[in-house]
Amino acid sequence: MASPELIVVGSVALDTVTSPAGSVTEALGGSATYFSAAAAILARVGMVAVVGEDFPAEHLTTLSERGVALDGLETAPGRTFRWKGAYEEDLNLAITYDTQLNVFETFEPKLPALWSDTPFVFLANIDPRLQLQVLDMVPGTAFVGADTMNFWIEGKREELSRVIARVDCLTMNDAEIRQFSGEENLLAAIDATAGLGPEYIIVKRGEYGAMLWHAGDLFLLPAWPLGRVTDPTGAGDTFAGGFFGYLASQGEVSPTTVRHGLVLGTVLASFTVEGFSLTGLLAVTPAALARRVTEFGAMTAVTGTGPVLPAP
Amino acid sequence: MASPELIVVGSVALDTVTSPAGSVTEALGGSATYFSAAAAILARVGMVAVVGEDFPAEHLTTLSERGVALDGLETAPGRTFRWKGAYEEDLNLAITYDTQLNVFETFEPKLPALWSDTPFVFLANIDPRLQLQVLDMVPGTAFVGADTMNFWIEGKREELSRVIARVDCLTMNDAEIRQFSGEENLLAAIDATAGLGPEYIIVKRGEYGAMLWHAGDLFLLPAWPLGRVTDPTGAGDTFAGGFFGYLASQGEVSPTTVRHGLVLGTVLASFTVEGFSLTGLLAVTPAALARRVTEFGAMTAVTGTGPVLPAP
Repeated sequence: MASPELIVVGSVALDTVTSPAGSVTEALGGSATYFSAAAAILARVGMVAVVGEDFPAEHLTTLSERGVALDGLETAPGRTFRWKGAYEEDLNLAITYDTQLNVFETFEPKLPALWSDTPFVFLANIDPRLQLQVLDMVPGTAFVGADTMNFWIEGKREELSRVIARVDCLTMNDAEIRQFSGEENLLAAIDATAGLGPEYIIVKRGEYGAMLWHAGDLFLLPAWPLGRVTDPTGAGDTFAGGFFGYLASQGEVSPTTVRHGLVLGTVLASFTVEGFSLTGLLAVTPAALARRVTEFGAMTAVTGTGPVLPAP
Repeated sequence: MASPELIVVGSVALDTVTSPAGSVTEALGGSATYFSAAAAILARVGMVAVVGEDFPAEHLTTLSERGVALDGLETAPGRTFRWKGAYEEDLNLAITYDTQLNVFETFEPKLPALWSDTPFVFLANIDPRLQLQVLDMVPGTAFVGADTMNFWIEGKREELSRVIARVDCLTMNDAEIRQFSGEENLLAAIDATAGLGPEYIIVKRGEYGAMLWHAGDLFLLPAWPLGRVTDPTGAGDTFAGGFFGYLASQGEVSPTTVRHGLVLGTVLASFTVEGFSLTGLLAVTPAALARRVTEFGAMTAVTGTGPVLPAP
């Protein structure tokens, strides 16, 4: 297989999730998993992560059949990372019952030698200390994105700030960027964070869509209107995977590719939340994706003339 | 003056408002006031409402100079409608301290004879009993919209349902349509409400924008991203005024005019919330409006090619 156009470094997890729609136990999850399963629809993606010796082989098959390059997926002694959580009425809010880092406690990311000239790199939500290690390994020419979460904002603000200062593109949800910046108003929060250095900031707003900041300009995109949400887990990682997957597939970062990329991320995330674990995302066919992208174009085109987006 | 292209029936009020930005006492407000002050920028609008004998003449001058036809504004014995409220950290949520209906307790709307063939009519937020009376007065050929609030959903559900069944276009905010339909999911709430009959349903989502439903199709529009909110009072009425004002100015309801109308409503509302009472909205110049419409087009155009909207 040709070397990847896009690398993601992040977590692979076994998730136990309860939502109003039901529950799953030790299902395939993790930030790098959702990201790569989404990105692989659009581009050649390779994953850098770690699993324990207990990781079910069938999950490797799932990712591999999806086209995700697993050369960078290490198996370490011990147990796989586990997360246990629930969603109640407010599906925007995950309640964490238990987090077991397990093999992630001692993880040191390693980039396969053949991947060293990969042009797009995404540092999914993991310890900023690891994100900094990866930043030292990737070439200066790569377009690098990073995600994070409240846990690191609270516990590792200094390392996280150094990550943010070194990446091209930061993704955070609205609560996180407010928390990180100390600014309640979203524009003020973006301004304060942009001062650290990233060229692009994407604020994820859950069911309310996303906001992209670049060099003082804003782009606003609504979310896909969902009639049914089964499990919101992985929506943000899917969104980022669709966005970076599209950029990698086009090979360039331009005003048009970033906007189309956000549409792909938004639409792919709508599939993820329709099922537990990866079931919704894995069921996406090219035809189903193209149909929803076209519908989304029609739903958001101010000209009212229908589709404005090329199918991916 | 030529007869209006658009009539609004609603409230004229004296508002006492406190927000984190400051406060005003007995300032000009009311649903018909904000609606007509916005619509008058785009179309000939006439107001049907009532004020008390204590209503300051300067407010009449303000509305008249804005171009609002006041032939349908009655002065009744007694005091003008008053509302006293506040906004705290969450600017989406108004806290009501006091509502004095005063002259609205006995108001019977009367349509000036010359206005009887007006093609666009909006029933702003007032007692659904009065909205029904107006519906009996307007010709079957008019395009009629209605707004409401939680107070009537709780207290006059039966009358309100009859209003909804008879109008072409319903506007509600997200909390209201959830409350009215008993459905938590917004699409389910829209479906249930659409079953009553309106051809168009607009769900106002505050800082998250608006959603338009028509014949099973959805249109999604983000809100203008606000760096500064002084007073959210009247944002929804301004939005509706911009929307109906644009439709009236174009003289037709089409997929394109409704989408452009929502953009105008969104942009005009962004001016309203920048000042107390009508100060933000009254300060809008054609140039400032055109500039913000163009900027909004650029911020929401998925093609990334900049403005897609004609200036109004």
